Amino acid sequence: MDQHGQRDTLHIPAERDLTVYVDKRELVTLMTLGAHPEWLVLGYLLNQRLVKSVDEIESITVDWDVGAASVKTRQGIDRIEERTAKRVVTTGCGQGSVFGNLMDEIDQIRLPEEAELRQSVLYDIVNAIRLKESTYKSAGSVHACALFRGSELLLFVEDVGRHNAVDTIAGWMALQQALGAGAAAGGAAGRVFYTTGRLTSEMVIKSAQMGVPVVVSRSGITEMGLEVARKVGLCAVGRATNKRFLCYSHPQRLVLDAMPVEAPTGAGEPRALTA
Amino acid sequence: MDQHGQRDTLHIPAERDLTVYVDKRELVTLMTLGAHPEWLVLGYLLNQRLVKSVDEIESITVDWDVGAASVKTRQGIDRIEERTAKRVVTTGCGQGSVFGNLMDEIDQIRLPEEAELRQSVLYDIVNAIRLKESTYKSAGSVHACALFRGSELLLFVEDVGRHNAVDTIAGWMALQQALGAGAAAGGAAGRVFYTTGRLTSEMVIKSAQMGVPVVVSRSGITEMGLEVARKVGLCAVGRATNKRFLCYSHPQRLVLDAMPVEAPTGAGEPRALTA
Repeated sequence: MDQHGQRDTLHIPAERDLTVYVDKRELVTLMTLGAHPEWLVLGYLLNQRLVKSVDEIESITVDWDVGAASVKTRQGIDRIEERTAKRVVTTGCGQGSVFGNLMDEIDQIRLPEEAELRQSVLYDIVNAIRLKESTYKSAGSVHACALFRGSELLLFVEDVGRHNAVDTIAGWMALQQALGAGAAAGGAAGRVFYTTGRLTSEMVIKSAQMGVPVVVSRSGITEMGLEVARKVGLCAVGRATNKRFLCYSHPQRLVLDAMPVEAPTGAGEPRALTA
Repeated sequence: MDQHGQRDTLHIPAERDLTVYVDKRELVTLMTLGAHPEWLVLGYLLNQRLVKSVDEIESITVDWDVGAASVKTRQGIDRIEERTAKRVVTTGCGQGSVFGNLMDEIDQIRLPEEAELRQSVLYDIVNAIRLKESTYKSAGSVHACALFRGSELLLFVEDVGRHNAVDTIAGWMALQQALGAGAAAGGAAGRVFYTTGRLTSEMVIKSAQMGVPVVVSRSGITEMGLEVARKVGLCAVGRATNKRFLCYSHPQRLVLDAMPVEAPTGAGEPRALTA
């Protein structure tokens, strides 16, 4: 019922629960739109650092009738009990969960120095997303993530949670690389990761873990997100809508080849902010 | 750096990590803006159903120097290992974590039948939030929650995560009730809970757990959120901006005393959706 008392039928997104079992041991239940559950589970395991490579996994079998994803590893996951015991509740929703100390790992990550993003390509990306969002347009209440190679959209994923969307992309990327398609296409260095969600530390870490040196968001950044981005050399671009954006870190990666013609905003002028 | 290559200094929200220890046992690490950490920890324990009432807690001591919140219970928490072993990753961010089966509990919750919300009060609430948001206006990237008694704003909380914000409100409410202030003011039945976040199942469950019969959001609803709202008799209002809104469940609680004068939207016309 709307503000005029009128009743209408609307679309809303439907999340399903998918319980992940690793070698028959229950690990976690994910709530997902479920478009690509196998990539999601693979990306989840990789991003949580429970597996290091696709090779460690023999199979992932999803059965929606019982809402279960069964992961079979080749050798088991070393010390899985211990490694999933520590829970850090993350910023994104305030209470996301990551296992162990992902933050410890970022010390080992350095993104390729030469990677850059042309402003014209950034505008192509923002426009491609605008044209693409399908569940969002019809039902709202979902987040989108996408992976680009230059202006070319490689994969677009919508999910109820922004972490499911990025994990799905991570799973797809890892599978492509395992199949040799990643190397053929120049690897992760030329890639740009787009998310509608905020650039919190976990989102920045996940981008860095995938080796993607540029992340673009419609939303803003938090202090820890910025700190991680600076540390790993990630170019974090936020508030990207139409021709506007804010580059929070590593602006040297941005090539300003398409500056908009309207007058620049005065330095002290307040900016429109959206969460 | 912006789209014109101009550099500027901006505000961004700073999340801090707060590790919760219950009787010296590490439970979880929350990432929070940290405005009201004691209420947050109390609300977290209550909403996760690890404690049933404020009386079970002797003290909560927060030390920001070490990022720790020490909870001392009177009698310990029964079977805490077992009850925190099961992890459900929630919809909000895709990977929030709740312990155990909160869904099992909703069968016991029925919100008071007589509770209602006047449209004029709803407009007061939306306007009060618009005037209030302070971190959001200066830095973006935060969620807000608020508790109202009619048009009166009782508590407003901003946090990096929407669950931290609602847990803080739950903690405050429980403390007020324990102090007798809740009963004096008519309890939860006349309350309205506002959130900028989506009405996912966990958000609806948390509102119901607090006994608040009306929840208002700027965002939309998911299928599981709607299902829970219908089950417990919660009036869920979403897309509330200016004079617009959509009531998704229990519209009989809404008293349409302030219909806007502009022409009603045609039933088949697409609506503007924002996540």
